[in-house]
Amino acid sequence: MKQIDVCLTPDLLHLHTIDNTIVVVADVFRATSCMVTAFAYGVGSIIPVATVDECRALQQRGYLAAAERNAQTVEGFDLDNSPFSYMDERLEGTDIAMTTTNGTLAITRSRSAVKVLVGSFLNLDAIARYLRTQTYDVMVLCAGWKGRVNLEDTLFAGALAHRLRDDYAMHEDSVLLAHRLYCDGKDNLVSYLANASHLRRLQRLGIQKDIAYCLQHDLYDVVPVLRGGSLVKMEV
Amino acid sequence: MKQIDVCLTPDLLHLHTIDNTIVVVADVFRATSCMVTAFAYGVGSIIPVATVDECRALQQRGYLAAAERNAQTVEGFDLDNSPFSYMDERLEGTDIAMTTTNGTLAITRSRSAVKVLVGSFLNLDAIARYLRTQTYDVMVLCAGWKGRVNLEDTLFAGALAHRLRDDYAMHEDSVLLAHRLYCDGKDNLVSYLANASHLRRLQRLGIQKDIAYCLQHDLYDVVPVLRGGSLVKMEV
Repeated sequence: MKQIDVCLTPDLLHLHTIDNTIVVVADVFRATSCMVTAFAYGVGSIIPVATVDECRALQQRGYLAAAERNAQTVEGFDLDNSPFSYMDERLEGTDIAMTTTNGTLAITRSRSAVKVLVGSFLNLDAIARYLRTQTYDVMVLCAGWKGRVNLEDTLFAGALAHRLRDDYAMHEDSVLLAHRLYCDGKDNLVSYLANASHLRRLQRLGIQKDIAYCLQHDLYDVVPVLRGGSLVKMEV
Repeated sequence: MKQIDVCLTPDLLHLHTIDNTIVVVADVFRATSCMVTAFAYGVGSIIPVATVDECRALQQRGYLAAAERNAQTVEGFDLDNSPFSYMDERLEGTDIAMTTTNGTLAITRSRSAVKVLVGSFLNLDAIARYLRTQTYDVMVLCAGWKGRVNLEDTLFAGALAHRLRDDYAMHEDSVLLAHRLYCDGKDNLVSYLANASHLRRLQRLGIQKDIAYCLQHDLYDVVPVLRGGSLVKMEV
C-alpha cells in the first residue's frame, strides 16, 4: 500500500527521503492558498523565489511581483499575500514572481521530489483525487513559521491524510498526530485555530476574512505543480 | 504569566532559547520512565552518556551500565531499558551510567537551561507541583525517535501543559497542538497510542507490559534533576 507521511516543518526535512515521493507543500495562511486562488483565476505561472531582491529583479523583467515578509506586504510590489488580491480577471495569463516568509522556501527545498504540488484546503479534493491516480508515496511538507511547527498546516496535512485514508497507509507518528488533530478539530476549524499563534499574528493585522476564506474546503479544482523553476496549473 | 512551550524533537532545539527556562525532558518509552522508576527505588545517581563505549568505560570504574540501542539491550550491560529492571532493592544507593537512542542525548543537549528535569507520566504530578513553585518559563523537550516527532512524548508534553494550564500560558502552536492531542486521547492513552510507530516497534519486542506501565500517571513523588553531569533526585 502507498504511504502518506508528514514533515511538520522544513527544519525536519533532513529526516525524510523525498526523491521517490510526491511532496505536497502547505502554507495555508496564506502563501499556498494565494497560489491556488491565483491559478483558479487564470494566472499562467508563479515562480517561487527566496528573496525580496530576486522578486524585484523579476519584476523589472515583466513579472508581477508578490511578496510577504512577517505577514506584511512589501512596498512597490504588485500583489500582497491576501488571497483576495488574486481574485482579479486582469491576472489571467500573467506570470508572477512570489516570495513569502515560509511557503516559497518550502517549495524550493522540495525540488528533488518526484513532483511538488501546492496544497491548501481550497484545493484539498483536487489534490486527493490526483494523488489516488499516482503510484508514489506522498509527503505533506508543512511550511510552518520560521522553522516552527504550526497548527494550520498540520491540520491541512491531517485533512489530506483523512481524505486518503483508504488508499494510503499512515505509519509514522507525524501523520498519525496530524490526522488525530484534524479529526478532533474538523467540525469547526475556525474555533479550533482560535488560539493558534499565526492566527493571533494575522488577527492583529485585521485579516479575519482571509482566515475564514483559507479554511474553506474544496473550492477550486486546481492542482499547481512545480515544473522547472515555475509553478503551473496541472492539466488533469 | 509564566509560559509553557514544547520542543517536539531535539532536531528543533535550535529554534528555542532555553537559558532562562526550565527544561523537562521526556522519553516516555522508555528512558525517562526508567530513570524515574530508578530514583523511586533509591538509585543514587544516573550519568546520561552519549555512547555505548562511554557507558562501558564508566562500568569499569564501578558504575552499573545501562543501555539501549534501537530499543534493544546491549550485551554485557547490567541493566536494560525496561522500567521493571529498575524495581530492585539491590540498586539502592548505586550509580548508573546510561545511554539510550534518544533520551540521554536530549538531556545532555539541554545543559544550558536553568534546570533540566526528567519527566514521565509516572512523575507527572511531582513535576507539575515543583514547577508551580518556580518563576521560570518551562519547555518540554520531547526526545522523539532519531529526530522524528513521536506521539507518546508529545502526549506527555500535552499532559504537563494540561496540569499547568492555570499557571502557565500556552502561546506557541507546538504546545497548543500537544495539549489538544492529550485532551483528545487522555481517556484511553493505550488505545490512542495503538498505532504509534514506536509502540509497534516495542510490541514486536513483546513488551506490552512496559507500555502499560509507562502510561500510568502519578506513581512516584520523584523529580530527577541534572546537577553537573549527573541526574540526582531533587529534595523537595
